[in-house]
Amino acid sequence: MKRLLALLAAALLSTAAHAQDAGPVERWGSKEVTLAGPRDGNPFMDVELSATFRQGERSVVVEGFYDGQGQYKLRFMPDAEGIWEYETHSNRAALDGKRGRFTVAAATAGNHGPVRVQGLHHFSYEDGTPFWQVGTTSYGWTHQPEAVERQTLTTLAAGPFNKVRMLVFPNQDVKHQPPRFPFEGAPPKAWDFSRFNPEFFRHLEQRVGDLRALGIEADVILFHPYDKGYWGFDQMPADVNQRYVRYVVARLASYRNVWWSMANEFDYLTKKQMPEWDRYFQIVQARDPYQHLRSIHNAMVLYDHHKPWVTHVSVQSGAIAEDFERAVLFRDVYSRPVVYDEVKYEGNIDRRWGQLSAQEMVLRFWMGAIAGTYVGHSEIFKDPDDMSWLGKGGTLRGESPPRLAFFRRILSESPPEGLEPIDKWQEYPFAGKPAQYYLGYFGQQRPESWPFALAKPGLEDGMKFRAEIIDTWNMSITPVEGVFEIRKRDNYSFADKNGRRIALPGRPYMALRIVRLP
Amino acid sequence: MKRLLALLAAALLSTAAHAQDAGPVERWGSKEVTLAGPRDGNPFMDVELSATFRQGERSVVVEGFYDGQGQYKLRFMPDAEGIWEYETHSNRAALDGKRGRFTVAAATAGNHGPVRVQGLHHFSYEDGTPFWQVGTTSYGWTHQPEAVERQTLTTLAAGPFNKVRMLVFPNQDVKHQPPRFPFEGAPPKAWDFSRFNPEFFRHLEQRVGDLRALGIEADVILFHPYDKGYWGFDQMPADVNQRYVRYVVARLASYRNVWWSMANEFDYLTKKQMPEWDRYFQIVQARDPYQHLRSIHNAMVLYDHHKPWVTHVSVQSGAIAEDFERAVLFRDVYSRPVVYDEVKYEGNIDRRWGQLSAQEMVLRFWMGAIAGTYVGHSEIFKDPDDMSWLGKGGTLRGESPPRLAFFRRILSESPPEGLEPIDKWQEYPFAGKPAQYYLGYFGQQRPESWPFALAKPGLEDGMKFRAEIIDTWNMSITPVEGVFEIRKRDNYSFADKNGRRIALPGRPYMALRIVRLP
Repeated sequence: MKRLLALLAAALLSTAAHAQDAGPVERWGSKEVTLAGPRDGNPFMDVELSATFRQGERSVVVEGFYDGQGQYKLRFMPDAEGIWEYETHSNRAALDGKRGRFTVAAATAGNHGPVRVQGLHHFSYEDGTPFWQVGTTSYGWTHQPEAVERQTLTTLAAGPFNKVRMLVFPNQDVKHQPPRFPFEGAPPKAWDFSRFNPEFFRHLEQRVGDLRALGIEADVILFHPYDKGYWGFDQMPADVNQRYVRYVVARLASYRNVWWSMANEFDYLTKKQMPEWDRYFQIVQARDPYQHLRSIHNAMVLYDHHKPWVTHVSVQSGAIAEDFERAVLFRDVYSRPVVYDEVKYEGNIDRRWGQLSAQEMVLRFWMGAIAGTYVGHSEIFKDPDDMSWLGKGGTLRGESPPRLAFFRRILSESPPEGLEPIDKWQEYPFAGKPAQYYLGYFGQQRPESWPFALAKPGLEDGMKFRAEIIDTWNMSITPVEGVFEIRKRDNYSFADKNGRRIALPGRPYMALRIVRLP
Repeated sequence: MKRLLALLAAALLSTAAHAQDAGPVERWGSKEVTLAGPRDGNPFMDVELSATFRQGERSVVVEGFYDGQGQYKLRFMPDAEGIWEYETHSNRAALDGKRGRFTVAAATAGNHGPVRVQGLHHFSYEDGTPFWQVGTTSYGWTHQPEAVERQTLTTLAAGPFNKVRMLVFPNQDVKHQPPRFPFEGAPPKAWDFSRFNPEFFRHLEQRVGDLRALGIEADVILFHPYDKGYWGFDQMPADVNQRYVRYVVARLASYRNVWWSMANEFDYLTKKQMPEWDRYFQIVQARDPYQHLRSIHNAMVLYDHHKPWVTHVSVQSGAIAEDFERAVLFRDVYSRPVVYDEVKYEGNIDRRWGQLSAQEMVLRFWMGAIAGTYVGHSEIFKDPDDMSWLGKGGTLRGESPPRLAFFRRILSESPPEGLEPIDKWQEYPFAGKPAQYYLGYFGQQRPESWPFALAKPGLEDGMKFRAEIIDTWNMSITPVEGVFEIRKRDNYSFADKNGRRIALPGRPYMALRIVRLP
């Protein structure tokens, strides 16, 4: 019966006169429908608007939003090519029952769709392309003067990062007033929380769209504690928070590169209790038709990432990514991908969280990878103009980014299923895919040679492998001469049948890549 | 009205003729009521028996069990002194409506009640005495010849351990047949799963009671994978498993020293799915009137210890207790006490899990403590008679136990609230209670001195401390001369105002104890 009704509705839509919307939209692009509607009263509070988008028997309900000046919008991210139709629903006649149809073209080059969880612990784009997360953080980059924001985009375009963590609300900085605010009113605190400032959100969308064009995911942070009550966006009433979350989701969900982070350092927002965080997760889960990735970032207290609305683990830990035997532990805990989004930052400030050397920063990415997890970068250097990549964007000064580009290249040449730790608990620094591919990393150790020996799972006598020595700091890959044929050595390992070792240069930050030969 | 009914019921009970049971029972002792009942049919399956124990307005419902030969029993652990009354309920007239009263005396010396969770991450007995868990494992010690079991008890009486992990079902060993089996029938597999063997359980109870008399907790493991189908106790139908869990709880819950472990290496019991484990937890939670501690032990896959019926985390990990910065991670994840029950074992066998030196075994206890967690011991040495403490009990051959006794002494002199990590993520090896008590441990490092510096929380200029040097391996405590007066050093620490250092002997396994002076 339900199916019949759907078919009937589709048939009715097909025969009705349509507003044939202009302009093509690609698969996983953003289709925008603009409608004129009431300006009276408070459109943000009074007007309800949604639309049902249909293709055949499939239908997706999308929430609309008021964009100011009598304009209402609906945005839709189609996940299939072909003809789609829509019909609007509203408590205002001017916005209700509007219909249209449009054609969705194939995705263009570089558009792989939104990022999804792949298997238990990894990511891939919706088209199946692996997503090897190499993230950075630039909290306030969308709250800067135009020139700085353009510089940030230029930096990102040339850099190694495929994900940026960024705040919706500005971060408080007494020396610098953000160009726009999310509500009507005047800084610092005279806000009308019942009226959003559409221009603020249009700007945010432009930047998310800029990242999308660069193939970079936008990890959008909904709340943060760096306001400290100055503007008060960290202390809004619960009903305002909920309306705000819905509004952001209605505006941004159609951008395929969006990830949702409920908060940065959520536990420093001491006025919000745990059930409130659950509630914001639930709102996003219910309102985002595309189920973009969802998580939340901590300071000293961990959120329970086992909760059903958490798609992946986003963690700050100052120590966990220092070695792969630590990093694997949260992977063991959660049946989800683990991203160590904050592991301290490259830099030279007085604070302990901003003093990593570039070597230490890069090491953490490698250690995370060997543990089958993902790591995040940022940097903060002393600057007379109080500029920092972490806070504002602009340019990068650290030495880690080229090494992270090299790291990302190595990842991208790994099995598409993701790197899995091979033999945990045994100080065995290899991840990969048993009997196929092994990536090992020695960190600060300076071995002068390595006995060719692989952990038992999947191996058989006579299998043959080739090896490469990777200098992760100097960014070189050196093939090792010859072929290694293995034979069972003991209950736990197979080794080269002639007992061969691989000579290593006695420097730190070396890796090995071992690939099975046909 | 409910209260009135309760009072009325109590009054009726008081005036009724009672079977005044002989013999005193102490608070947190086990009151046993024996009743004669039907022998016909299958009493294990056909007869329902429970009793309500009352004191004033409080009532506790306790499940009874069939003990063979027409005898039915109810056991009750009173948690308050004074007069208690009971009334039985049964689907058989001979067992229904039986009443009695008895007096509960004060707990005798050494009886502190059952162990409870204290705060978020620690344990105490119900009378408030801290419980510093120093556990060991002897899986099959209750399945040995009488002489060996007595030897095990003698060893435990002289040893450092206050908790023993032990299996209900025997562990499979082809060279040795256990004296008793839990069901009627004949080994290896001709069991009548509808009829328990009461003698098996009476023996188990005797041993749990023996441990209770020694002040040792019995971590009772309900299922394990070491049967491998030989007797089939690892592969019983779900309804048998559930009846078995209820029967064990009915028999053992009144022993104050019982902890429940749903399984050892639960994920190696590959025929049981996750919902089954949840179900066994739920049965124990519903049927144990005293809410003894509940957990489950893993091999390679972790159970979700966030689930509401888990009281504390019981974990096997081969690497997590090697350093305090690892060990703290699971504490951060779970708002529960964390016990690393299996961290590899002291021994000399070929398997990687049984090769720890005594030094490494002891180190893991210290590292766990500095992380605010608890660790478990066992040992397995090559033996021509195939005896091992881990599998069978008997005597201990390792060198760790005296050091663990020394460790337990140090713990017992620490603040009763438990040790809390002082400054995580900073390689800062101190736990304790800020501004009061600091216990630091250097593990395999061999410092020759230590600058007197404490992490900032709670500190103020002018506070004074005394210090002791602890050699955790040689078991010595050496007071440091003089008093240390602190002054703020930087944003993160206070240090001795004169920059004094504490000289250390340059050996591994050294600790420092620093206590505030009034």
